[in-house]
Amino acid sequence: MTIKTPGSPGTSQRVTSHDVSREAGVSQSAVSRAFTPGARISPEMRQRVFDAAQKLGYKPNAIARSLSTQRSGIVALIVGELHNPFYPQALSQFAQALEARGKRALLLTHDARQDIQETLDAASSYQIEAAIVFPTRLNSTAPSLGDVSQGGVPVLLFNRHLPGRELLSVACDNHSGGRLAAQVLLNSGARRLAFIGGDPDTSTHQDRLNGFVERLAESGLGPLATPSLSFRYDWGVQATLDLHAAGHLPDAVFGANDIIAIGVLDALRSLGRRVPEEVSVIGFDDIQESARLAYRLTTIRQPLEAMIEDALAALGDPQPGFGPRLHPGELIWRDTVRAATA
Amino acid sequence: MTIKTPGSPGTSQRVTSHDVSREAGVSQSAVSRAFTPGARISPEMRQRVFDAAQKLGYKPNAIARSLSTQRSGIVALIVGELHNPFYPQALSQFAQALEARGKRALLLTHDARQDIQETLDAASSYQIEAAIVFPTRLNSTAPSLGDVSQGGVPVLLFNRHLPGRELLSVACDNHSGGRLAAQVLLNSGARRLAFIGGDPDTSTHQDRLNGFVERLAESGLGPLATPSLSFRYDWGVQATLDLHAAGHLPDAVFGANDIIAIGVLDALRSLGRRVPEEVSVIGFDDIQESARLAYRLTTIRQPLEAMIEDALAALGDPQPGFGPRLHPGELIWRDTVRAATA
Repeated sequence: MTIKTPGSPGTSQRVTSHDVSREAGVSQSAVSRAFTPGARISPEMRQRVFDAAQKLGYKPNAIARSLSTQRSGIVALIVGELHNPFYPQALSQFAQALEARGKRALLLTHDARQDIQETLDAASSYQIEAAIVFPTRLNSTAPSLGDVSQGGVPVLLFNRHLPGRELLSVACDNHSGGRLAAQVLLNSGARRLAFIGGDPDTSTHQDRLNGFVERLAESGLGPLATPSLSFRYDWGVQATLDLHAAGHLPDAVFGANDIIAIGVLDALRSLGRRVPEEVSVIGFDDIQESARLAYRLTTIRQPLEAMIEDALAALGDPQPGFGPRLHPGELIWRDTVRAATA
Repeated sequence: MTIKTPGSPGTSQRVTSHDVSREAGVSQSAVSRAFTPGARISPEMRQRVFDAAQKLGYKPNAIARSLSTQRSGIVALIVGELHNPFYPQALSQFAQALEARGKRALLLTHDARQDIQETLDAASSYQIEAAIVFPTRLNSTAPSLGDVSQGGVPVLLFNRHLPGRELLSVACDNHSGGRLAAQVLLNSGARRLAFIGGDPDTSTHQDRLNGFVERLAESGLGPLATPSLSFRYDWGVQATLDLHAAGHLPDAVFGANDIIAIGVLDALRSLGRRVPEEVSVIGFDDIQESARLAYRLTTIRQPLEAMIEDALAALGDPQPGFGPRLHPGELIWRDTVRAATA
């Protein structure tokens, strides 16, 4: 797995239009015009740009070009199931951020069993300028997702990435977040740590799990258990009851998202286990409910506002670069993890 | 207040195209064509329809006509704040229901301090076929809402109505629901009943409160207190703590929605009060959280699916009739109301 450092978005060493403009000795605007059908540019100038581009292996970015030339003002938001309150919150903030830029959100729902390509095709018939995709599962249903960007409509994955694909993607740094969760629980004195995971098919699940396990290993520990099924409340409850029934109750649990962690808290309460005295619990997301009196969940906050701004910046950028643009999570201390032992 | 019986949608005694077709002795289709610019109909037939229409005082419904002639396939969903999980759930189901009809949802957010007309104007520039409005507050910000329908784009209020306006509206029968909540709590033996309300400016708040108070009065009781502020969790907590601090802790609470009721439950727990032994609590909506282990909230479910179907039927109906189309709420028994006393 490739781990990115927060603050250095983009994994590829792509040749940019900047490189081409330097090589050709022309302005970046000239490079842009050279690759735009119908743009005002002399044949000589265009040839000079093309020669430099060929020498450097530069491929003009159809994605960004379409965004600057196609002006329907509509951006598709493609959502999966909305069980996790993180997504309605993101959806609402995205709609507002688009409106602040004079654009509008076309809402499309996506069933995880379908090919995402079908949903994107449907969106395309509305002359969308871009599509932002945030379904819960994608890895197994996106055989042709790369083609869409090539078709001229920029597609950005929000809080997901597909390894090996040339796709725009903005996500929380889930791997570092997983490490941070392990660190916080280890500091509290925990030694029997469990991870209760979400859909195993998602990058969020995988990255959080890998970061968690990696950090435990550095302390010579392995996870007590890593049951994983879905990012839902009911699963958090069930997994906790199952661990208890099997005699494997941990002294600390990392829930792969807050909704799972809230299920863990409810299940522990029903079992008569005290939090954090007997079991520490940490989540991921910082949804509204986590701050409530009944939970006061210690968690790792996704910097939603910054992620949304970055997503819109990437879609408007003529040279966005591919690969995940990662944002570090922020530890929110509340009441469900024991204070660090001295 | 006018109370509607569930199952008899539409308050007005409007003359319909059916009346005109009978009077003119022509088909309903001919009536429809007579009022549609460019439709195939002989001048004689059109005149006959116009004469009958004038005699009966019939006004053709520009709203319904626009829906059948304007075919952008886009329906605007105008949402307010999404703090109440009922709305993201409704939003998601609306998007799916529209997709099942080959249409798409354009999502617009609306700040309650703005005039809704501005938001509708913005939506109109996208050639929408219809707009569905579900902000939390409207009464004070909809001075010109009636004009929009007249402009040709049908507007439907979801879970809200504006008394005295000729607007399509689909809502839960909140008044009957308020009565039902009172009935359930009275049956449980409660005598010191409080209502913790939402935004006083909304029809949902007012109808639930009025139904509740009306039913209590029939038993010779008045509410112990009816503090009302907003449809939010924090308010449910605060109102409960305030009642307790003032020495007015009731033996039963009707939360104007589930999120308030969940705040009430959390506050009672923090006060060491047992539910339902010492205090019964009932909510309204049946959001997902209400079923959770930690709450098991007894509540009145809004029949969301039926309401959405009805909303789309009304928008597609050439003679929808105005005034609220009401759907009865359904009592969901869980664990927060005492069993009925013998």
